[in-house]
Amino acid sequence: MENSTYTAESLKALQAHINTMDPVDLAEEFRDLTMTEIAVRMKIMNKDLLADTFALLPSEQKQEIIESLSDEKTMSLIQDLDEDELVDTLQELPANMVRRIMNYLVDDVRRPVINKLLGYPEDSVGSIMSVNFMAVKKNVSPTQALQKIMSSDLDANRLEQIWVTDESLVLIGYVYLADLLRNQDAHLVDLLNSFPASVLATDDQEDAAKIAQKYDISEIPVTDSEGRLVGFIPAEWAIDILHEEYEEDMANIHGIQESDDSPVPYLEKSSFRMAKDRTTWLIICLITATFTGFIIHRYEDLLSAAVVLTSYIPMLMDSGGNAGTQASTTVIRALYAGEVGFKDTLRVILKESTIGLMTGGALVAVNIVRMLILEDVNLAVNLTVGITLLITIVLSKVIGGIMPLIADKFNIDPTVMAGPIITTIVDTMVLLIYFEVASFLIF
Amino acid sequence: MENSTYTAESLKALQAHINTMDPVDLAEEFRDLTMTEIAVRMKIMNKDLLADTFALLPSEQKQEIIESLSDEKTMSLIQDLDEDELVDTLQELPANMVRRIMNYLVDDVRRPVINKLLGYPEDSVGSIMSVNFMAVKKNVSPTQALQKIMSSDLDANRLEQIWVTDESLVLIGYVYLADLLRNQDAHLVDLLNSFPASVLATDDQEDAAKIAQKYDISEIPVTDSEGRLVGFIPAEWAIDILHEEYEEDMANIHGIQESDDSPVPYLEKSSFRMAKDRTTWLIICLITATFTGFIIHRYEDLLSAAVVLTSYIPMLMDSGGNAGTQASTTVIRALYAGEVGFKDTLRVILKESTIGLMTGGALVAVNIVRMLILEDVNLAVNLTVGITLLITIVLSKVIGGIMPLIADKFNIDPTVMAGPIITTIVDTMVLLIYFEVASFLIF
Repeated sequence: MENSTYTAESLKALQAHINTMDPVDLAEEFRDLTMTEIAVRMKIMNKDLLADTFALLPSEQKQEIIESLSDEKTMSLIQDLDEDELVDTLQELPANMVRRIMNYLVDDVRRPVINKLLGYPEDSVGSIMSVNFMAVKKNVSPTQALQKIMSSDLDANRLEQIWVTDESLVLIGYVYLADLLRNQDAHLVDLLNSFPASVLATDDQEDAAKIAQKYDISEIPVTDSEGRLVGFIPAEWAIDILHEEYEEDMANIHGIQESDDSPVPYLEKSSFRMAKDRTTWLIICLITATFTGFIIHRYEDLLSAAVVLTSYIPMLMDSGGNAGTQASTTVIRALYAGEVGFKDTLRVILKESTIGLMTGGALVAVNIVRMLILEDVNLAVNLTVGITLLITIVLSKVIGGIMPLIADKFNIDPTVMAGPIITTIVDTMVLLIYFEVASFLIF
Repeated sequence: MENSTYTAESLKALQAHINTMDPVDLAEEFRDLTMTEIAVRMKIMNKDLLADTFALLPSEQKQEIIESLSDEKTMSLIQDLDEDELVDTLQELPANMVRRIMNYLVDDVRRPVINKLLGYPEDSVGSIMSVNFMAVKKNVSPTQALQKIMSSDLDANRLEQIWVTDESLVLIGYVYLADLLRNQDAHLVDLLNSFPASVLATDDQEDAAKIAQKYDISEIPVTDSEGRLVGFIPAEWAIDILHEEYEEDMANIHGIQESDDSPVPYLEKSSFRMAKDRTTWLIICLITATFTGFIIHRYEDLLSAAVVLTSYIPMLMDSGGNAGTQASTTVIRALYAGEVGFKDTLRVILKESTIGLMTGGALVAVNIVRMLILEDVNLAVNLTVGITLLITIVLSKVIGGIMPLIADKFNIDPTVMAGPIITTIVDTMVLLIYFEVASFLIF
């Protein structure tokens, strides 16, 4: 039945076409295909391409495929997966399926490695690194190293950098295959390149991405605590880590929870799920808005006597909020780049106060001109708005500057704190200052 | 004088130490050194390390160094720079210095290439790509290719992928050096890997980064309009492009102008400059706040009669603002990923309205409970706030959703639009709706 729509020729054409495709594009195409159509394609695909494509599918499709395959076919697919792809897959599948797959691996030489990789915490370097590397000891000759490479069955893209260790397997550097080839009479150590940094398998994967970004290196070595090489992260994977982090930061700052691990395209994602992702934070904001409501309540007499004061509330709140997020964005960036830490709190306060005084001064000047041109209000109101604006900008900058440092100190992602908490604090503060200054100047 | 603080031994130790360092770390160290100290180090550094370190320095330091060097030394430094490093340097230096350097290049074989690279627009792929690649024609044998590699003087990290072209130099794929080595009797085309995507030298560098991210490839080929290879972008450079884009997006969204090209660490950057970077947008917000001020002015009678309405203004404005930026963040992400475009405007409106109705409904429910528990207000006020909240959330989501699409349509960076314009529109809208609903229900 399933094959009936394909003639022998059309199948052959499909096969020729598919096998020149990139696994990324194929996986994208598979998303919109039925299991029957996928089954047809899986039969005619090259084994390696199939494995790479499978590794890129969303977890639901991986499950469906494994459920539909015979034991033998599953085993062959599993064997074609790289260690990191296999570990990734095992982490996504339900427990019963993991058990089934682990049974296939009983005789697999890779089983100890797989078990070890599965033990690394989620988001750690170890959980995503590649273990397919080639290492030689420093006393081998280039010719010996070349022979080892020629008899290796590693993928060619894992044989670009050959890692070099000392006698006790501690990583001391790497050599390029091209250098071995061009300098076969040299000593290996003369061809050695040093690595500017390495990560531990237990480190956060973000650390690896930061190193790749800072040093522009194409492979980041992963070692154990004794400095022995256990794997590496290619630069192209570091891009994905960085991209994920960025999307997470953006979502955090704007109060969006990402309930999905594998992101679904915007137009395909269920509206209900998206509403759910966005509602939590809006509710938190709504509830914390009780503070601002209370404050305004308390000063209702003041407001009835000078309703004109109300018209400046939006401007003051927006200015404070914006000034605060400008500061928090800058400090979060500096935190990530390792330029500041909690120990610099005082220096950040000082810096943000200075910036706040300058920015606030400029704003007050502009606002006085604006009020003079456009409106006809009395001096007391002008003064109240100006003083509040200046204090607001300075305090918002300071709060925006130190909140990320405090969050980081307590191991909270600073971007989570950046949005909701700063808004609430700044809003409350602005209103209190405004009404207190008004009470003092106007009555 | 300058050497007097160094003994022969300490200089030797310094030399040994420096020459094992990574150019990135060295460039970082150079930032805090005086020109005298830098001069000492430049004399004892390996030539390649010196060139790589120089390429990473901020433009002011590059200028100082070139000014301090003799013609001969400048020429030698220039010759050690890779084409992309040289082009980068030339783009940063003042015109008179560029002329001086171009004079040194009169006899340089690279001069035509340099001139061509200098012609590519800023932020284009061509302005940053590496031209140090090796290509062979498809009819050579692996042995011939290996011979070409062995006699090449390209850096070893540029010889990992050997590009393969047809007779008319059109790129058809690439082979790995390791595969050539392991399959010396094969046909080159049997070792060929296809490339999933390529970019034009005139494309935006962001396009190259997106391809690196999507396909996880370690080198992105750059071709001319006929498909002939003209350069490539390594994945590790794509990380820098992505990182820059992220920082730009973040700065745009939060209204920070980056006046610096080479970013200065937070604590070292002048407060005045930072204040300047942040003030423009705050002033724009302040001026646009005139709208909200006007609206409140217009409804002053209403507000004096029901001062309690004022206490909900902050909550409504915050909710609208947050709902709007949630939508714009999501749509900007989808725009970047190529999931939506201007043609999808209607679908985005529909989707965001649906999400808005769900989220808004949930918020109204929570708010009713909150008002009932905490406050003692009449039904009309409750209704006014509830209806305004629902309309606000829906409209904010729709506006937040379509503004990035419109910006993109007119080739404006959507993140620039995301912050200020959405806030202004949403603020104005919220107040208008609120007061209209209140006029209708309360009086």
